[in-house]
Amino acid sequence: MMSTTAIRYDRVMGRWPDGATERLERAALELYQSRGFESTTVAEIAERAGLTERTFYRHYADKREVLFAGAAQLQDLLVRLVAEAEPSLAPIEAITAALTGAAAIFEERRSLVSQRQKVIAANPELQERELIKLAKLAAALAEALGQRGVPEPAATLAAEAGVAVFRVAFDRWIGGGDQRSLAVTITDSASHLRELTSAR
Amino acid sequence: MMSTTAIRYDRVMGRWPDGATERLERAALELYQSRGFESTTVAEIAERAGLTERTFYRHYADKREVLFAGAAQLQDLLVRLVAEAEPSLAPIEAITAALTGAAAIFEERRSLVSQRQKVIAANPELQERELIKLAKLAAALAEALGQRGVPEPAATLAAEAGVAVFRVAFDRWIGGGDQRSLAVTITDSASHLRELTSAR
Repeated sequence: MMSTTAIRYDRVMGRWPDGATERLERAALELYQSRGFESTTVAEIAERAGLTERTFYRHYADKREVLFAGAAQLQDLLVRLVAEAEPSLAPIEAITAALTGAAAIFEERRSLVSQRQKVIAANPELQERELIKLAKLAAALAEALGQRGVPEPAATLAAEAGVAVFRVAFDRWIGGGDQRSLAVTITDSASHLRELTSAR
Repeated sequence: MMSTTAIRYDRVMGRWPDGATERLERAALELYQSRGFESTTVAEIAERAGLTERTFYRHYADKREVLFAGAAQLQDLLVRLVAEAEPSLAPIEAITAALTGAAAIFEERRSLVSQRQKVIAANPELQERELIKLAKLAAALAEALGQRGVPEPAATLAAEAGVAVFRVAFDRWIGGGDQRSLAVTITDSASHLRELTSAR
């Protein structure tokens, strides 16, 4: 077991962990896809990862959290990127800059992201959870814009539009029909929205 | 009991019913607000409405549905209004036209809508349900645009942007800070989004 080393590596590098967390995630996603989310137990995930249930619960509250822990991290990152965006950027540009800035995380984890997407698509309860996460992400981004001095309703409109841009770009990217990088599909989706709303 | 007459009236006029459904809704909203959604029983709602539990269940599957049956009707109406919008309208204009076309229903029921909003704001589970309904509304509107020949991703982007426009307009209208009609706040919110996205 290399989990201690791996966790230390993760802390030092500030990257996605290569240790217990990722092994558990990989094992869980494989089982969710082959047996279904409902039918998979935490014991099975731990066993497949070569770890104990106790270790599982040190990393995740339950089997659903394996799918959504990353979403919480992503939200924190996007909020930070909005805060750090060039002060001169318009609200929607700050959001787009944050989204493209985070795109590399998805690229790096493409096969895991794709597996996760399939598991969620197969389960209505998980789909609902995903929608709630996206709605909360929009609220968090609106608040981050508020911190930049963007008044309402501009902050909420820009954040909601930004999440819509991301969803569309993500679907194209993960769907595979579009060979371009996620950052490029996000930029493309943002300019698409601009054209759509400016059309009179 | 006038429920038979009321339902007939409702059918003929094509308006919100003045009979059993509305009496149950009013009674439920009053109880949800005074005692909390969790603590209210169907028996209490029926009693306050002067009806039987049996009648309640003829109109609503459970006490939560009292809050969300209107959302389903609204979705059907908006989808129809998008389908019937002038063929020359751009996607986002068709959505905005549908939203302003449905605004009168909210105006007519303002005090009930306001009560409902307070009940939902007080209960995280109901808030999640509301987010899911709005996400489904966006998906239904995107499909309605697809029926008009709008390709993806324009259909999804316009629908998501439209729902964002509506949420912002609705919050201003129901918040009371804005004395204008909902139709006007929707139009205002739509032009706000246009300015936001066209800003370079």
